[in-house]
Amino acid sequence: MTDAPAAEPFDAIEVIRAKRDGHELSREQIDWVVDAYTREVVADEQMSALAMAIFLNGMQRREIAEWTNAMIASGERMDFSGLTAPDGRRLETSDKHSTGGVGDKITLPLAPLVASYGVAVPQLSGRGLGHTGGTLDKMESIPGWRAELSNEEMMRQLGEVGAVVCAAGSGLAPADKRLYALRDVTGTVEAIPLIASSIMSKKIAEGTGTLVLDVKCGSGAFMKDESMARELARTMVDLGRDAGVNTTALLTDMSVPLGLTAGNALEVRESVEVLAGGGPADVVELTVELARHMLAGAGVTGVDPAENLANGKAMDVWNAMISAQGGDPKAALPTAKHTETVTAEADGVLTELDAMAVGLAAWRLGAGRERQGQPVQFGAGVELHARPGDEVRAGQPVMTLHTDTPERFERARAALAGGWTVEQADAERAAALRGRSVILDEIR
Amino acid sequence: MTDAPAAEPFDAIEVIRAKRDGHELSREQIDWVVDAYTREVVADEQMSALAMAIFLNGMQRREIAEWTNAMIASGERMDFSGLTAPDGRRLETSDKHSTGGVGDKITLPLAPLVASYGVAVPQLSGRGLGHTGGTLDKMESIPGWRAELSNEEMMRQLGEVGAVVCAAGSGLAPADKRLYALRDVTGTVEAIPLIASSIMSKKIAEGTGTLVLDVKCGSGAFMKDESMARELARTMVDLGRDAGVNTTALLTDMSVPLGLTAGNALEVRESVEVLAGGGPADVVELTVELARHMLAGAGVTGVDPAENLANGKAMDVWNAMISAQGGDPKAALPTAKHTETVTAEADGVLTELDAMAVGLAAWRLGAGRERQGQPVQFGAGVELHARPGDEVRAGQPVMTLHTDTPERFERARAALAGGWTVEQADAERAAALRGRSVILDEIR
Repeated sequence: MTDAPAAEPFDAIEVIRAKRDGHELSREQIDWVVDAYTREVVADEQMSALAMAIFLNGMQRREIAEWTNAMIASGERMDFSGLTAPDGRRLETSDKHSTGGVGDKITLPLAPLVASYGVAVPQLSGRGLGHTGGTLDKMESIPGWRAELSNEEMMRQLGEVGAVVCAAGSGLAPADKRLYALRDVTGTVEAIPLIASSIMSKKIAEGTGTLVLDVKCGSGAFMKDESMARELARTMVDLGRDAGVNTTALLTDMSVPLGLTAGNALEVRESVEVLAGGGPADVVELTVELARHMLAGAGVTGVDPAENLANGKAMDVWNAMISAQGGDPKAALPTAKHTETVTAEADGVLTELDAMAVGLAAWRLGAGRERQGQPVQFGAGVELHARPGDEVRAGQPVMTLHTDTPERFERARAALAGGWTVEQADAERAAALRGRSVILDEIR
Repeated sequence: MTDAPAAEPFDAIEVIRAKRDGHELSREQIDWVVDAYTREVVADEQMSALAMAIFLNGMQRREIAEWTNAMIASGERMDFSGLTAPDGRRLETSDKHSTGGVGDKITLPLAPLVASYGVAVPQLSGRGLGHTGGTLDKMESIPGWRAELSNEEMMRQLGEVGAVVCAAGSGLAPADKRLYALRDVTGTVEAIPLIASSIMSKKIAEGTGTLVLDVKCGSGAFMKDESMARELARTMVDLGRDAGVNTTALLTDMSVPLGLTAGNALEVRESVEVLAGGGPADVVELTVELARHMLAGAGVTGVDPAENLANGKAMDVWNAMISAQGGDPKAALPTAKHTETVTAEADGVLTELDAMAVGLAAWRLGAGRERQGQPVQFGAGVELHARPGDEVRAGQPVMTLHTDTPERFERARAALAGGWTVEQADAERAAALRGRSVILDEIR
């Protein structure tokens, strides 16, 4: 029992105990604890205990909304309401957020695609940690490209080019930044109230008009379980709507890697293929479907986003977007110094290809980092030569592993062991595997 | 997802997640996490998240025993097996631990009383925090007395005098010391597995042959609820037995303060009254009953411990024990500079006297500390002039408040408001209130 110092209206222990004992936190308690954590009056070890209590005892919709608002209030808010094109036309903004998955390079073709229809896409992104890569890591494999823009540079590029992918400034929801780093080391990441408020505080503070969420589920996703992913999507859509952002979500499959590449430059190459009108079917499907929702939210309906992939208009925006940030869209991408292939042992059909196994292998090859601030290998990763449902022959390469540091091959192979299956399967089963849609549901 | 550094067999996040998800921790996980926390490889914010997960998901008996052993293994163990009296006779050791309550000065008369029957009492104690005072704070109000003894001094005094009350060295269960301070600020104190392992790790490491636990329940205790107190007692008795310590527990009432004083020097004065054959009935009852158990555990049966209170033998040991640590048992005790009385407003019977209200008042008067390391006022506290069941008259003092800093009276009075009731009650009810035993049950 202690008395809170007179200057503070609450005591951290009192707030922790309330949640620990299954009570709802009041708005005043939530505002105080988030603010006091930002001011370092509430210590890390207190916030982690509270996060665990939230993890295990949950939060009501009201509490999650108030927690989100408190994190927004910890920093600055951006405002795109005055955004105009070079011709003076007012620009709507539309943004996407993915909960992350293996081979998820969708932002790269998507941002220029949506911008090619005259809707501005401010894509404030982060770097990767663990088995899923970060958008900035992928973009930084493009020679010359720089992630850090001032707010003025970002606004100008958004008006002139229509799309910008850049580092989120530290001014948006700083409480979330600190809390996210804490959750990462305290086993409190996978709590829906905390995930939802973390994502939505940044997106709401960013000030986009429309937001489309790509909520993934399956072995390679944050949420392994579809019902949890659905609950997360529902929670975030509600939070966005409550804050006046036109929000929808797609529930998408992450049991299999997205596309045929996992790794920074490898994924840029695949993204450029999609922008050139080609690329793997699942990447194209998801890019087009997310674009459709982002455009519809901004009032652009009756268009087929696949068109601007086919006719090169999306590619034009990509080239402008890369150049505007110092990158050379024509330069050769980095490649790894060493490669090895993983081959099939027998004839059959690839029936299983586990996203987590591939993600872990790419990470171990050097595509990802173990701790914040570490460098990544731009050329490292996994290239797939077959997708579930494809026939393979004994001795045929199923994957190619890329790394600059060949001592990593062994642990990458260990990650892949048991993560893929080649077996006898009839034509019907193979076709069903090939024909699976990546999009499981839509939540609005 | 991270890979643990090669030097560490586990990763803190993995252990936190296991308990968070309701799994039992393995012995290897427990040994590692406690050891790694002591080595500061596991951070405070990780341990507090784990403590909250333990709080909410519990631990099995096996896990609690292994957690206790891991904390013991974090430090040194004492060994009293070679302890002898000046005449060369081998001495048995018997110790007591109380979970703490308002006015709980029992250690002071108890240690010399048990020693007066030839059983050695090594009473390693702590300082108080919050509304319950610490044994060392009470003893330090005796002019000249010092709490810090080397192990050699302690062993010598134990052999020569038979009883020693001193500060627990930092060498016993250092993991517990760090964890206790952490739990205190993270709302994870009241978890039975953590309380039981904290208490028992120190007592087992201390190496006593017999241990008697005084587990309190009621408003002024740590455990408000009798069933929780019973579970804690059962858990600790099991832990002690499993470790080869002859352990029993008394479940005792802490809804009313123990005796007529709460505060350091005030409680020493009352303890000396008990040692002189007087003192309040409840303090005498509990002292004698705990002594009976401590003696029986050490093989001394068929004696009535009340005798050595009446005949002065316990007082002789007290005087020797105080002198051996530099104290003057004849010196005047410190008194507070200011007093105020709290008086009854009407005639009636004192039917209620809440232990927590009195404890809080004593604490606010300066008898306790808010943070570790703060000084306490030796003279401060609450003196009671009536016990439940006693008749009082309008205007008659029911309590006297003592402090060196009179600005504290107001908040002390606020703590007492509603904490005591004088009302009409018939003789039968008054007698029942007066006759209540402090001992609720015995757990062996």
